[in-house]
Amino acid sequence: MKRAIVLVSGGIDSLVTAALAAEHEEELYFLHFSYGQRTEGKERWCFEELAKHYKAKDSKIIDYRWLAEIGGSSLVQEGQEIKTLKDDIPDSYVPFRNATMLCAAISWAEVLDADSIYIGAVEEDSSGYPDCRESFFEAMNQLIRQGSVKENITIKTPVLHFSKSEIIMLGMGLRAPFELSWSCYICEDEACGTCPSCEIRLRGFAGAGFDDPISYK
Amino acid sequence: MKRAIVLVSGGIDSLVTAALAAEHEEELYFLHFSYGQRTEGKERWCFEELAKHYKAKDSKIIDYRWLAEIGGSSLVQEGQEIKTLKDDIPDSYVPFRNATMLCAAISWAEVLDADSIYIGAVEEDSSGYPDCRESFFEAMNQLIRQGSVKENITIKTPVLHFSKSEIIMLGMGLRAPFELSWSCYICEDEACGTCPSCEIRLRGFAGAGFDDPISYK
Repeated sequence: MKRAIVLVSGGIDSLVTAALAAEHEEELYFLHFSYGQRTEGKERWCFEELAKHYKAKDSKIIDYRWLAEIGGSSLVQEGQEIKTLKDDIPDSYVPFRNATMLCAAISWAEVLDADSIYIGAVEEDSSGYPDCRESFFEAMNQLIRQGSVKENITIKTPVLHFSKSEIIMLGMGLRAPFELSWSCYICEDEACGTCPSCEIRLRGFAGAGFDDPISYK
Repeated sequence: MKRAIVLVSGGIDSLVTAALAAEHEEELYFLHFSYGQRTEGKERWCFEELAKHYKAKDSKIIDYRWLAEIGGSSLVQEGQEIKTLKDDIPDSYVPFRNATMLCAAISWAEVLDADSIYIGAVEEDSSGYPDCRESFFEAMNQLIRQGSVKENITIKTPVLHFSKSEIIMLGMGLRAPFELSWSCYICEDEACGTCPSCEIRLRGFAGAGFDDPISYK
């Protein structure tokens, strides 16, 4: 049985990554992290609906509030002036987040005896985040070889080198339910349409030539 | 200012590691993880007393209950029969624990602008745990180079190749407060003296030629 864990935030990249995992794997396990994101209520709803849609064998939400306590990111510290941790990286960077999330996924994969962990990281859209680069995921796979009881677990990043429009086209081809995804950083009822994340999403749909099924203000 | 984070469980290895960090660093930040260990109350008391003793600039306890939820270890699942994850590794192994803890420490180090993370891992006493080997810590340092905004953070394992007796002798030389450490897996008031962890501790003190200052049943 080919078992895979899929990290599902509820955004477009993780949605299409889940759609790809559903094509290639036999048993899916969905994993979500709650770390004080502003729109966590909506993201969690998307996560749960997607777990049903893709018939995940099991799903888990891990409480990572410590990431908000540690701070250092505008994504988890509302209304605060954030000093960016490095000059060329935006203040939305959450310190070492991808590594901390992947490590928890590896823990779960050891217990489940899963072979693969899917994450919807995108290098091009990542604004220079160091934990979205191919070399980072290679280092994570090397860490598994050296430090895990299941050396054969592999981290898979199927949309790493795609643009947002390409990801949307791929998802449309796989009939991914975009109405169950969320990107807005600000609102949870209707998307604001103007935050950087909404802008990237809307540009992506325009470039792909599809209408976005979610509602905007 | 040389800032360092020290992972402090409250056991002997982390105590002596903290004592060494206190010798070499200017500002210490103590970090502890709560993941459903049986004797967490006592470990937390040791952690807080040690933070005072070593005048930690700040200390943080991170809630890692998800590790207990994921399971796979006798250390967090009391009274349950545990299927070991790999034949030659004891059921006390907690899946990928050291990596998950170090990643949280790296997140905090990015925000604090700390240079070093100290962990009291011991390869010889580690019963084959893959995340206690030197090659694992090298892979972690490589992960920092590839995935952190502070590529210069270094994980330090000063007692990695010492025996328990050597660690105790080193700690005695540094006047480490062994009365503020705890090793017993079973009890919190007085140590049982018979669990594997107590046995290793008592053999270590006997080999070093010192009396253990904590009380036993």
